[in-house]
Amino acid sequence: MRDLRKIYIVGIGPGAKKQMTLRAREVLKRCPVIVGYTVYIDLIREEYPDKVYISTPMRQEIKRCRAAFEEAEKGMDTAVVCSGDAGIYGMAGLMYELSGEYPQVELEVIPGITAASGGAALLGAPLTHDFAVVSLSDLLTPWEKIEKRLIAAVATDFVICIYNPSSKKRAAYLERACSLMMEYKDAETVCGIVRNIGREGESVRILSLRELKETKTDMFTTVFIGNSETRKIGNHMVTPRGYHNE
Amino acid sequence: MRDLRKIYIVGIGPGAKKQMTLRAREVLKRCPVIVGYTVYIDLIREEYPDKVYISTPMRQEIKRCRAAFEEAEKGMDTAVVCSGDAGIYGMAGLMYELSGEYPQVELEVIPGITAASGGAALLGAPLTHDFAVVSLSDLLTPWEKIEKRLIAAVATDFVICIYNPSSKKRAAYLERACSLMMEYKDAETVCGIVRNIGREGESVRILSLRELKETKTDMFTTVFIGNSETRKIGNHMVTPRGYHNE
Repeated sequence: MRDLRKIYIVGIGPGAKKQMTLRAREVLKRCPVIVGYTVYIDLIREEYPDKVYISTPMRQEIKRCRAAFEEAEKGMDTAVVCSGDAGIYGMAGLMYELSGEYPQVELEVIPGITAASGGAALLGAPLTHDFAVVSLSDLLTPWEKIEKRLIAAVATDFVICIYNPSSKKRAAYLERACSLMMEYKDAETVCGIVRNIGREGESVRILSLRELKETKTDMFTTVFIGNSETRKIGNHMVTPRGYHNE
Repeated sequence: MRDLRKIYIVGIGPGAKKQMTLRAREVLKRCPVIVGYTVYIDLIREEYPDKVYISTPMRQEIKRCRAAFEEAEKGMDTAVVCSGDAGIYGMAGLMYELSGEYPQVELEVIPGITAASGGAALLGAPLTHDFAVVSLSDLLTPWEKIEKRLIAAVATDFVICIYNPSSKKRAAYLERACSLMMEYKDAETVCGIVRNIGREGESVRILSLRELKETKTDMFTTVFIGNSETRKIGNHMVTPRGYHNE
């Protein structure tokens, strides 16, 4: 029987420690080694100072993953932390892709609150029905494919949750996406943006698709595009689910 | 200044108590009244026996919501509990729809781990890239609209996560959906099904779209349809994200 080492790939939720699950906290307590992107590591280090922390900057995902496998091979239970959910635009995929090179290491994914859930809760209830999650980052996906997905989703009246709406290098991407969606969708469609979910400077805004097109966002923002039934109720963005025929 | 009463709409995650967030637990501890569907109430009652519990059977969503508003109006902080996330096919939407009738009551949504995150974690990493969430229940949506969404999502290579794949009354719905998707998608596409996430009898299976078509599921099952790049790595369903060009 092989002596398996364990790596937990842990989603810590959107910023606030209280949005972490009990299971995630239990795993972080137990693991002597914690690996992650610098910003997320700093959030955890305050609470658990007595651990080995291995942090790498943005974009060094492969290095970060290999560091975790190497620690696990030394016999240390290791946690790889991601913000939000570990499997939704998180590190879980890459860890599995590399896992074949480390047959002694077993992986377990600990799910977390993703920005779609966390942002929706702040806005009200935009995701009560079918929805599509699309990243506007074209680092790993051709822009043409992103456009096709947006068109498919608006044409069939999905609510859309947009991750990575823009960054310094991709400043106009959300504007381009909004222009495209406005060809298929009412410019007055109710939309929402949420920034810094669960962190300092958290902000929420409900606006029309037309206004969204003129709005600057960044990589800490999550965007919600309503479907044809989404509306504003009080200060909240709500997609009715249709229970009224009950 | 009005004296606002508070209702928390709380997602308790997929079954296991450990998948609840710290914030959700804090809110349940604090609220003297807890309202929900009978099965979820029973999960919570063990831990907090000294509360007022108001439970209603399936399909009595409006009654359940009104019961919560009435308790809150009496001055009791109230928690409405949902399995998974409170906003994703959960009760948050209906609560906001009814909220205009209860101006003294303020709502707050506490997000939870939805079946898409919880199921993906058990399968490996199927949702690492753009995905669509579709319910096959036609109680509230015409089947024709569901079909259009499925076609749009497969035609543009979204990973698809299916909620409510079938029930006693809708026994053949998943089979119909699979037949439809096979017109646009390789029958060998890697798929996954997860049943009873975080509960007794939890089970996970990875299979082809062709096999999925022949498989019986129920309302405790969540289904994942891979995109064209999704593959099986070891015993896991993984959608590569393309970091390899790093």
